[in-house]
Amino acid sequence: MAGRYFDDIQIGQVFETEPHKVSRSEIISFAESFDPNPFHLDEMAAKHVGLPSVIASGLHTLSLSFRLFFDLHLWDDAIMPSPGIDKVRWLKPLLPDQTIRVRATVTDTKLWKPAYGVVRMLHETIETTSDNPILTVDAMHRLKRQTSTAGAT
Amino acid sequence: MAGRYFDDIQIGQVFETEPHKVSRSEIISFAESFDPNPFHLDEMAAKHVGLPSVIASGLHTLSLSFRLFFDLHLWDDAIMPSPGIDKVRWLKPLLPDQTIRVRATVTDTKLWKPAYGVVRMLHETIETTSDNPILTVDAMHRLKRQTSTAGAT
Repeated sequence: MAGRYFDDIQIGQVFETEPHKVSRSEIISFAESFDPNPFHLDEMAAKHVGLPSVIASGLHTLSLSFRLFFDLHLWDDAIMPSPGIDKVRWLKPLLPDQTIRVRATVTDTKLWKPAYGVVRMLHETIETTSDNPILTVDAMHRLKRQTSTAGAT
Repeated sequence: MAGRYFDDIQIGQVFETEPHKVSRSEIISFAESFDPNPFHLDEMAAKHVGLPSVIASGLHTLSLSFRLFFDLHLWDDAIMPSPGIDKVRWLKPLLPDQTIRVRATVTDTKLWKPAYGVVRMLHETIETTSDNPILTVDAMHRLKRQTSTAGAT
């Protein structure tokens, strides 16, 4: 059911993404573009500050986690630009060759305008070996209503 | 003064980044990797939903804004992985060939452990022609104290 609209979403629904194994080269490539801190780029620099290896930029973990979520294609015809996200928490570092998946749980739905509403979801990025969350986000998704539904309200 | 530590930061300090002009190819390249929604990739798809052109993924605007901030090199020896960010708000879309800069204002400082503290800053990403903020973030930066300072406490 790729064609969901705002009114198809209910509090408590849970969506689970496919897993993705993160390579060292992906981590370094993102960091070079957006977050060139030595502990994202250089093994020795990371070890020098007590990390087991380079770690992914938090912005990379966040972006990758959203990519996994978007790949679910939950609501391709309904999605509008998001107003924002809240409470981004990097709980543990993401290391090369670790695998992540995302569990997204609907926590709130609110009609903003006759034509669209906002769905709030808790996105949890889970490292699959430990089953530990490494990132949590309180995300807002702005979704259109189906034209017929909007017209009936 | 690149060598700032936690105790060098005071509420009210303001830091301004260099500007960066965003190209259409940067917008499309990021979207292909992390947010392949048609309105980030395809001119006709963007116009079809009422946008003037493709718009940058919000995750791209966020990552680019942090890159500009990191390029200030405010505290290269003090920075530790951040615990998180709050209240990310995409106020306006970022379009190809627009130029952004970031203004970051210290809003709070809190010692978390004898060896480090967290600095909260309001990051405002400003589109330079209109002087309008297009993104705001309540960001946490975790910074070490200088060894001598920590020892004295």
